[in-house]
Amino acid sequence: MNFFEAVEARRSVRKYRPEPVPREVIDQALQAALLAPNSSNLQPWEMYWVTSADKKARLVTACLDQSAAATAAELVVFVARTDTWRRNRDMILAALQQRGNPAPQQLNYYRKIVPLFYAHGWLGVVGLVKRLVFPIVGWFRPVPRGPFSQAQLKGTLSKTVALACENFMLAITAQGYATCPMEGFDEQRVKKILGLGGESAIVMVISVGQEDPAGVYGARLRLDPKLFVFEV
Amino acid sequence: MNFFEAVEARRSVRKYRPEPVPREVIDQALQAALLAPNSSNLQPWEMYWVTSADKKARLVTACLDQSAAATAAELVVFVARTDTWRRNRDMILAALQQRGNPAPQQLNYYRKIVPLFYAHGWLGVVGLVKRLVFPIVGWFRPVPRGPFSQAQLKGTLSKTVALACENFMLAITAQGYATCPMEGFDEQRVKKILGLGGESAIVMVISVGQEDPAGVYGARLRLDPKLFVFEV
Repeated sequence: MNFFEAVEARRSVRKYRPEPVPREVIDQALQAALLAPNSSNLQPWEMYWVTSADKKARLVTACLDQSAAATAAELVVFVARTDTWRRNRDMILAALQQRGNPAPQQLNYYRKIVPLFYAHGWLGVVGLVKRLVFPIVGWFRPVPRGPFSQAQLKGTLSKTVALACENFMLAITAQGYATCPMEGFDEQRVKKILGLGGESAIVMVISVGQEDPAGVYGARLRLDPKLFVFEV
Repeated sequence: MNFFEAVEARRSVRKYRPEPVPREVIDQALQAALLAPNSSNLQPWEMYWVTSADKKARLVTACLDQSAAATAAELVVFVARTDTWRRNRDMILAALQQRGNPAPQQLNYYRKIVPLFYAHGWLGVVGLVKRLVFPIVGWFRPVPRGPFSQAQLKGTLSKTVALACENFMLAITAQGYATCPMEGFDEQRVKKILGLGGESAIVMVISVGQEDPAGVYGARLRLDPKLFVFEV
């Protein structure tokens, strides 16, 4: 499917037909998700495709039993991890060196700059210092304003994971199936189902299935672009 | 361009050639951005296409003078607004009623449920109450765990705006141009340039231009999907 056709065709579907979705459709969409741009290429995402009957039933409940989850053929949970960056960073450094002639700035970026924004020290003490120092430096010259805490890092990484979510949804649409991104869920319960803790943020639960026409709430409703787009 | 080709072709470009980008390319990408799925369809985004020479120069400085900004033909700032939901909600309610026979659940959703998560009351007092009450109810049944504060709302809405960012970047790629999403910027200075305040979060600055081959840092480097995708 043409890119713009996929963007036009994608609608949030809140009720699906009972037919299954072929495995390959989900696999290909997950591959597309993994190609999204992301924060320093540290790939801080995880994608949980929940297929076991027990976990799926609990996930539907954790999604407040909404029909977009309850009638879906498949459910995929998109997660942002704040703790995988060291492992991924080391793997990226190894891969860069294996390729040969890595740029010194690139090595320096992963060794020095990345920890400055990803590590917050014991009880967030290092982050606290950064929260005090950066705004002072910021009086004199431009400086990043975060992330300086675990909570802020979750925010930064959740944006990155959302980029992957959009690739996933469009990839499902491009293959003729439908999706619904859900934010209305009980994050504590979703984490419990997946065995995740404070290192993770549940970014979105995305359901997949064959569209039931009753699952689309009328024609697309978008307000006047003039409210949102400004040339300045 | 085919959807999957666009996903494969998109790379973050950190140096552009000096040629301009036609207006229509940006316009079409902004239209695609506005079709992204979003939180309760409240369209909490704003997109600032910075074309004035003075503002653009200041924006490049606020982006820490990185070459992805300095060499770009165009710069677009993607913003999440926490304060436009009432206006947009009222417009959506009016549009639903104009279409005729709105579903009572839909009206109820926008009138009752949306304020429950978007409004936090004077000094965040209502949000504080919700932060106390929801976890108690959560012991007994699934409940949403936020957003219960202005900061949490910014996080939720930033994810939505990121979905639009990905549409924008893929739409630029599909038209043969290149992008770089930037998170390394001085949020305070970017806000000042755009005349925005505490009601807004700068989600991403995206540069657009013609790819200079030297602006792509080697072959795409993605770690083993087994690190990120789990069937459970």
